[in-house]
Amino acid sequence: MRIALSQLNYHIGNFEFNCSKIIDAIERAKRENCQLIVFAELAVCGYPPLDFLDYNDFIKRCLSAINTIASSCKGITAIVGGPSVNPELNGKNIFNSAYVLSDGKIIHTAAKTLLPTYDVFDEYRWFESGKNNSCITIDNTKIALTVCEDLWNMGDDPLYTSWPMEVLQKEQPEIIINIAASPFNYLHAGDRKEILKKNIHTYQLPLIYVNQVGAHTDILFDGGSLIYNEKGNLLAEGKYFEEDFLVCDFNNKKITVSDHKPSSGTNDHYAWIHDALVMGVRDYFAKMGFKKAILGLSGGIDSALVTVLAARALGTDNVHAVMMPSEFSSSHSVSDSEQLVRNLGVSSEILPIKDLYQSFTSTLAEDFMGLPFNVTEENLQARIRGVLLMALSNKFGYILLNTSNKSELAVGYGTLYGDMCGGISVIGDLYKTEVFALCNYINRETEIIPGGILTKPPSAELRHDQKDSDSLPPYEILDRILFQYIEKALGPDEIIKAGNDKDLVLRILRMVNNNEYKRFQTPPILRISPKAFGRGRRMPLVAKYLG
Amino acid sequence: MRIALSQLNYHIGNFEFNCSKIIDAIERAKRENCQLIVFAELAVCGYPPLDFLDYNDFIKRCLSAINTIASSCKGITAIVGGPSVNPELNGKNIFNSAYVLSDGKIIHTAAKTLLPTYDVFDEYRWFESGKNNSCITIDNTKIALTVCEDLWNMGDDPLYTSWPMEVLQKEQPEIIINIAASPFNYLHAGDRKEILKKNIHTYQLPLIYVNQVGAHTDILFDGGSLIYNEKGNLLAEGKYFEEDFLVCDFNNKKITVSDHKPSSGTNDHYAWIHDALVMGVRDYFAKMGFKKAILGLSGGIDSALVTVLAARALGTDNVHAVMMPSEFSSSHSVSDSEQLVRNLGVSSEILPIKDLYQSFTSTLAEDFMGLPFNVTEENLQARIRGVLLMALSNKFGYILLNTSNKSELAVGYGTLYGDMCGGISVIGDLYKTEVFALCNYINRETEIIPGGILTKPPSAELRHDQKDSDSLPPYEILDRILFQYIEKALGPDEIIKAGNDKDLVLRILRMVNNNEYKRFQTPPILRISPKAFGRGRRMPLVAKYLG
Repeated sequence: MRIALSQLNYHIGNFEFNCSKIIDAIERAKRENCQLIVFAELAVCGYPPLDFLDYNDFIKRCLSAINTIASSCKGITAIVGGPSVNPELNGKNIFNSAYVLSDGKIIHTAAKTLLPTYDVFDEYRWFESGKNNSCITIDNTKIALTVCEDLWNMGDDPLYTSWPMEVLQKEQPEIIINIAASPFNYLHAGDRKEILKKNIHTYQLPLIYVNQVGAHTDILFDGGSLIYNEKGNLLAEGKYFEEDFLVCDFNNKKITVSDHKPSSGTNDHYAWIHDALVMGVRDYFAKMGFKKAILGLSGGIDSALVTVLAARALGTDNVHAVMMPSEFSSSHSVSDSEQLVRNLGVSSEILPIKDLYQSFTSTLAEDFMGLPFNVTEENLQARIRGVLLMALSNKFGYILLNTSNKSELAVGYGTLYGDMCGGISVIGDLYKTEVFALCNYINRETEIIPGGILTKPPSAELRHDQKDSDSLPPYEILDRILFQYIEKALGPDEIIKAGNDKDLVLRILRMVNNNEYKRFQTPPILRISPKAFGRGRRMPLVAKYLG
Repeated sequence: MRIALSQLNYHIGNFEFNCSKIIDAIERAKRENCQLIVFAELAVCGYPPLDFLDYNDFIKRCLSAINTIASSCKGITAIVGGPSVNPELNGKNIFNSAYVLSDGKIIHTAAKTLLPTYDVFDEYRWFESGKNNSCITIDNTKIALTVCEDLWNMGDDPLYTSWPMEVLQKEQPEIIINIAASPFNYLHAGDRKEILKKNIHTYQLPLIYVNQVGAHTDILFDGGSLIYNEKGNLLAEGKYFEEDFLVCDFNNKKITVSDHKPSSGTNDHYAWIHDALVMGVRDYFAKMGFKKAILGLSGGIDSALVTVLAARALGTDNVHAVMMPSEFSSSHSVSDSEQLVRNLGVSSEILPIKDLYQSFTSTLAEDFMGLPFNVTEENLQARIRGVLLMALSNKFGYILLNTSNKSELAVGYGTLYGDMCGGISVIGDLYKTEVFALCNYINRETEIIPGGILTKPPSAELRHDQKDSDSLPPYEILDRILFQYIEKALGPDEIIKAGNDKDLVLRILRMVNNNEYKRFQTPPILRISPKAFGRGRRMPLVAKYLG
């Protein structure tokens, strides 16, 4: 049996688009003499469809799309992910299933048993857990067909109380096929291979793994579909951050690939992050139907990095940078920004905000009389810039890119409705130290981001001689503490015991908790870490833990 | 056995505060010769603690609080909700439990079996489902102790595949005790009584039900704890939107209350909503540690209503209204607003935005040269107002109240970073027609909201002679379609079949879906309906369903 793996970039709820891609791939598989083609989890509707799944109308459209795809399955069998209706009255109404389509119809559905409900995942919100795991025989080959998380209940502290592969194994399958929607984070491609190999070693079976690729707002799918033999040798690996089509043969219980594909992934941590973010920006615009981005270029490292990523994602013609100096901006800020703009070839303009700032302070003069300059006036500058950028966005159809980083989002070092505006946050999952490292990666051969931007001390430039270090510890220290609290979920005692200053730890943790209200109103953040701000980290706003 | 029901307003993560309230209630119960006192679900940490539950440190603090409370339980038994550790390796690490505390220690824990994971609930995100349901005997009384949802798997299409009360019933308990964190919506107090009575009729047992009260950001708990005899007669009902303490006696399998309390709830739909919103605003400020609110008063009905609710929640001294007329504001707008301010006795000021508007258009003159006035200039006015309000908020420590209604949030008829700013959205779960009805309720005896505000056609007043009806259908029609799509989750075909114009339905549904990006950045919305925007309705931003 010849098997195709189709790694596609879907569009949530766009059934016509998804179906047409899937059917094109089926036609290609037929031309390449495949007997089976495998698509990803929830391929038919894209992942995650979220509460669209609460709409019977949406489910009906999924089923209708499955039937349309089935009618293309003549002389070939396809495995396609989609929601299926739970025939039992008890329990939730739908399953997250792998459909097996053959001879123009649905011949089998395998419902996902283990429903990830943590971090960015909410599957038990909509799906009932599949209970009747059984193998499917296609072309005389008995297949343990599983959906994503069904293979993940491994290790010493398993998250679930059932093991679908244990049930399937009793039927003596010859191969495991896993259809997945496994989102990227900088550790996940490695974790995934490890878990799949554990399954291979436990069950002594070859394994085919098909993932989605492409971005759905904040959630980035990296692709990287996999073909392993029963020894755990990797025979082929799909491209990362691109669509792909792989073919293998399965005969006499052995899996082979004709053109052995080596690993297509890079080992460079920041290359992964770079490619993920570029795909994230590109897909956000493409799937929303937008072309052009705008952003404020402050002269600092964050907006410089976002400009580079946007130019690579959208093309230099589609990025417009606006410099909005105030009386507190250093002279370098504009000249460094202009150098970056020249290096990249994006368009730019300068809109000084001095007059607007004076206009606001004079409107508020009576209210503010006798009161000193404080954070109010700092925020005012940031908000004037936000209003200008949004006006340009509205007038010309630009989408505003947000340039906040994870460190400042964590401690609330940013202005709501000011520099926290934007349609999508590009680097909001990168700590400031990671922002520097990614800039160095970008500059590894040529100086794209001007040296002046990389070497000057970080500053919001919202008052005279301001530096981030006036009110925050050095970023190496801040980011280390934040990582332990956010990614590692360690409490204050553990972080202090790890060698950090007690008062500093308590102050920073309090800042993180007290700024949930700001993060609640930020744009969606492209997720590249195992614990990003946004839907994967849900915290009470009105609370007093560690307060 | 004399039993006390303690209906308290907790603060999430504030263990000292919660413990001290719980221990005070235990002391009162002792003084009133009770042998048992019952508190709500997750009383020890407040509900919902969300991802604080991912922190071992947080769980440790919960356990430590439980032990502190236990040490007060001498001569009395207390049932207190809190997370408990799952002793098994398999499955999630914690349960959502009812602790039974007696003789200074934990004598029993009953783990919740049915974990609501829909709408605003995410319980399977953190908790393992309890599997070993067994009764607990206190003072020779065998009690079926259950946690909230455990009693809710009723009806023809049950959501779960297990029935904890069926298991408990086999041990022949004498009474059901249910500890709950059951949030308010305008249908829920009725639904709750119906479900509890179904349990009573099925199991022929008396029932004690203890709920939380108070607001946690968007989620409002209404209290209304209940005591039923085995016939389903309601013997006592806790106050709504206030703390309460009820006492009953249980002897010879019969439950009695000495001072029969009649139903404390009102039958007026808008009285419920009114009281819920006032509590929501009050608790947001009290638990955040804020006193004073600010808001923009446009002369329209939405901001007028929010001003009234804020004045009732916080006191007239703590509300500051700002009128910011533009060249497009009608003369009535300011005079009607001034009348409202006088009626209420709140403070106010007028800040015309004409100069600021000109300052922006002149800064942008080169960019906008030759281009007509459009939505850009409309948004600009809204954003100038947002910046002014935030400047006053920053300078004087006011919290900005958002005044958007559900109809405009649904169709995106509002300006991001303009009128969509604020710390909390007060009426974002009320359709425009409900806003009118609530204003009429407020004016039922005296004209508090000036008639001019209620009778003039709704308008954003962002261009000459603008009316909402220029671009939207009448609100009666719009709201009816929105309700069917949002609350009822009906698809376009069903809504059209119900007698609505096809093109209009498709246009409105598309507007709802296309404005997810705006709603993603709105403040938390006080939830009063069964389906509010916010954490209870999670939709993809980048998608094309019905697009």
